Amino acid sequence: MWKYGYSFCTLDKLSKRPRERRGVMVHSIFHEAKSEGPLYALFLNCTLKKSPETSNTEALCNLLVDRLKAHDPDIETEIVRVADYNVLPGISNDEGEGDEWPMILEKVKRCNIFVPAMPIWMGVRSSVMQRVIERLDGTTKTVMCEKTGQFPLYGSVCGCVVTGNEDGSHDCVANTFANLLHFGVTVPPNTDLYWVGDAGPGASYIEAGGDLSPYVRRNAELTALNLLFVAKLLRNNPYPIIIAEHNQKMMERNKVKMEAMKLAIQHMRENMPS
Amino acid sequence: MWKYGYSFCTLDKLSKRPRERRGVMVHSIFHEAKSEGPLYALFLNCTLKKSPETSNTEALCNLLVDRLKAHDPDIETEIVRVADYNVLPGISNDEGEGDEWPMILEKVKRCNIFVPAMPIWMGVRSSVMQRVIERLDGTTKTVMCEKTGQFPLYGSVCGCVVTGNEDGSHDCVANTFANLLHFGVTVPPNTDLYWVGDAGPGASYIEAGGDLSPYVRRNAELTALNLLFVAKLLRNNPYPIIIAEHNQKMMERNKVKMEAMKLAIQHMRENMPS
Amino acid sequence: MWKYGYSFCTLDKLSKRPRERRGVMVHSIFHEAKSEGPLYALFLNCTLKKSPETSNTEALCNLLVDRLKAHDPDIETEIVRVADYNVLPGISNDEGEGDEWPMILEKVKRCNIFVPAMPIWMGVRSSVMQRVIERLDGTTKTVMCEKTGQFPLYGSVCGCVVTGNEDGSHDCVANTFANLLHFGVTVPPNTDLYWVGDAGPGASYIEAGGDLSPYVRRNAELTALNLLFVAKLLRNNPYPIIIAEHNQKMMERNKVKMEAMKLAIQHMRENMPS
Amino acid sequence: MWKYGYSFCTLDKLSKRPRERRGVMVHSIFHEAKSEGPLYALFLNCTLKKSPETSNTEALCNLLVDRLKAHDPDIETEIVRVADYNVLPGISNDEGEGDEWPMILEKVKRCNIFVPAMPIWMGVRSSVMQRVIERLDGTTKTVMCEKTGQFPLYGSVCGCVVTGNEDGSHDCVANTFANLLHFGVTVPPNTDLYWVGDAGPGASYIEAGGDLSPYVRRNAELTALNLLFVAKLLRNNPYPIIIAEHNQKMMERNKVKMEAMKLAIQHMRENMPS
Repeated sequence: MWKYGYSFCTLDKLSKRPRERRGVMVHSIFHEAKSEGPLYALFLNCTLKKSPETSNTEALCNLLVDRLKAHDPDIETEIVRVADYNVLPGISNDEGEGDEWPMILEKVKRCNIFVPAMPIWMGVRSSVMQRVIERLDGTTKTVMCEKTGQFPLYGSVCGCVVTGNEDGSHDCVANTFANLLHFGVTVPPNTDLYWVGDAGPGASYIEAGGDLSPYVRRNAELTALNLLFVAKLLRNNPYPIIIAEHNQKMMERNKVKMEAMKLAIQHMRENMPS
Repeated sequence: MWKYGYSFCTLDKLSKRPRERRGVMVHSIFHEAKSEGPLYALFLNCTLKKSPETSNTEALCNLLVDRLKAHDPDIETEIVRVADYNVLPGISNDEGEGDEWPMILEKVKRCNIFVPAMPIWMGVRSSVMQRVIERLDGTTKTVMCEKTGQFPLYGSVCGCVVTGNEDGSHDCVANTFANLLHFGVTVPPNTDLYWVGDAGPGASYIEAGGDLSPYVRRNAELTALNLLFVAKLLRNNPYPIIIAEHNQKMMERNKVKMEAMKLAIQHMRENMPS
Repeated sequence: MWKYGYSFCTLDKLSKRPRERRGVMVHSIFHEAKSEGPLYALFLNCTLKKSPETSNTEALCNLLVDRLKAHDPDIETEIVRVADYNVLPGISNDEGEGDEWPMILEKVKRCNIFVPAMPIWMGVRSSVMQRVIERLDGTTKTVMCEKTGQFPLYGSVCGCVVTGNEDGSHDCVANTFANLLHFGVTVPPNTDLYWVGDAGPGASYIEAGGDLSPYVRRNAELTALNLLFVAKLLRNNPYPIIIAEHNQKMMERNKVKMEAMKLAIQHMRENMPS
Repeated sequence: MWKYGYSFCTLDKLSKRPRERRGVMVHSIFHEAKSEGPLYALFLNCTLKKSPETSNTEALCNLLVDRLKAHDPDIETEIVRVADYNVLPGISNDEGEGDEWPMILEKVKRCNIFVPAMPIWMGVRSSVMQRVIERLDGTTKTVMCEKTGQFPLYGSVCGCVVTGNEDGSHDCVANTFANLLHFGVTVPPNTDLYWVGDAGPGASYIEAGGDLSPYVRRNAELTALNLLFVAKLLRNNPYPIIIAEHNQKMMERNKVKMEAMKLAIQHMRENMPS
């Protein structure tokens, strides 16, 4: 599945190190898209419900939007409800006819602050959130910035919003941060904002008065402040890493590994007791 | 979200204990569907790819089908590729127009052996598998067997098939077994059958010769043998539990809990420092 | 690390299939230890706190003990607080001088019902629970029943008790069931009994009145009833599987795999670009 | 359990905002410890094995040490094998007589780069790693920097090293990053360095030639480069957040919440059907 990674990489261009080619520090094309104007915070609300149904997850997103604006009145914020779009299953950046993921991906490319937001279902993140992660995987398999090989989310900071009746937010947060770190985000401390009720069936965030939770309110402040601080830091200090050259070396070495694996498989096919 | 659980429960019927009403042991209607003819093993292949694309997960399913048939030649087996169906997002048994989940649910209701099968994406189970779990959640929220309140998967045994390039099968297996145990399955020992390659990009199950793996081959045997043994045991010994009466008591107690929660919220709304 | 598994296996004895040798069905020696007298339910309380400190996890265990006794007055129950024993780190059955795990392992070998019980710390199971799992791993690496190769927990059913201030029980339950299924237990449906409070700091199970939770009380009933039902079923119907012969085949095949892997490594060492 | 959090907080001092009190930006006392001299990278090797036993996890740590030194020859690095210390169970910063955690905690307080390193056991992180996490939890429950309330790991960046025979590294990485983000670290992208073999028993990192893995070698470079870049950035740009004031507000609000919870419990005790 994964072996086709980097197959669209334009090797002839990458074979010269960008930094050497120009003699100056180069930055990701995504850095350029993120470095001007007000900060842009993108929330992807991964509820199972389409608009205009009430979303508890959206209510918690709104609390964070409020705190972000309180600390940076100029910030541009947007909450996209993913279920309103036809996001096809797959692991590429565009799955063809009818696929509306590319519309969302354009927003992802330019955000300074990225906030996946999700309900918990059966202890883990929703299928809509998982699909978003699968689609974002595409951004690491295609070289999108020829200059640096950096993924679009390099230079973006990441927070996380989770709501559930009960239990599962740690699992949602942990997997989602870990996945997005692979995709390029930087995660500041104390930027996961979650609410869950006690064990068993019960009211959800809105009806349960989750906005009254002292823990939620504190965490909304910490999340907003630390996201803003690091987003500004990265805007002024883009990552210098040239991933493309490291990927190229990996691919060269992978050829040798794949030859070795073929030898091993052949040996097993010939000698394995039935 | 979860609070509407059991709302379709026909309380007047349930208020008399079925066991007392009849003076004989009653069984779930789903037990009846599972107790005659050859054993029926249902695999749900939750690859992201539609037919006829090659599915590594299906290849590993086929190995297990082979071992099941070797030990029980009469067994009926079926592999459903979920991506070929239009399974709408939601958490009920039928999400209305265009929803093809009900067709799959009919198969689930009568299987003796249930095998969710999935690829790993970003360390966890695929979005298609997660959606199936969300939809199966519906079976625990609606009383489908009025006699016992048992969920459709009571009396079914569960195995698990997972493939991935690398890493994540333990997480897939653990969450999937735990979820399905909530939905009624019984899990025998050593019935998770998985293959992953070593860290990083590489060949998938088929190309990597995963069928040569001594561990996979042993586990296919153990999985088949233990699934068959417990499936037959449960066919002859249905669970006697009357869940409906326990749910009814829970609902009565939940009323008191919800009153208490309202008092608490009111107190917080009136006294919480801004 | 894992490669030395099964090294104590007495191959000369296993090379003849026990079933054929005797002409009658053979059972695990552990089955024999579990098949007489009252049922024995063993709880391992994996709190971080030594006796006599109050343990919230123990309080929830006591609720389950109560329900088990209500439905089977003859049952023998025991709650072992693991922190009171000197359980050394390691993955064998006996780590030598001072190791008190063997005392606990003797109890594990004869239990009909096994209930790991644990607090959540930082979203996952406690370090004491994890250490118990690591030590139980030893039982799958040493052939302890020469007749069948079955692990000691074959024929035991497993429930799970989890308490935490908030969030994480699904992860604890899922990993613990999945691990123990590898070690031989059978898991009936609806046998995880957990309590968590809502998000953030707050009272723990006892102080929060967790015993009032309608969900907890229902689940205690379901857990007790289903554990008892399947424990009795397995006592009368021991698993017939002869794991030893499947392990032996796996070891023979593993020799070929290890040769193949050496070829692959050699090829990489000789050809890999630096 | 968690409710005693922040109880050592010196409220009289915190009631005046430090920033206002001084009229200048204040920094965490931990920032001051981290801002001079060469960068200090602390690895905590959480293998189950004491020195001088060979540790596969340490071998992978050494690869990262090598890459850190290649890109910053002045860096100070240290690998602490936690199993060589008597780290008592608990969740405070000092568990009293015989506890050697405080010695390790002193190192944690001053590191610029923090790298938890762990083997996988049964699909999740080792019990030694889990214990370290439990002990680090103490740093968030005691106000250690009176000026800012920041936890000691604020201003440190975090990478992760994981080795296992097979499967589980994503779970280890995800939970460990998520926990440490709660404790104050910042996580740059692509800083998890892991190796696992394919499914089943087999050679571990050293014997399997894991150092030849093209993926591991690439990730060692990315991890080193991004850890160094963000460590330097944070050394020059300390987090300005005053957590203490947010904790204080939370505590005041928690008093109201606890009153509300008592009302709720009382109502349930008086009205709950038995």
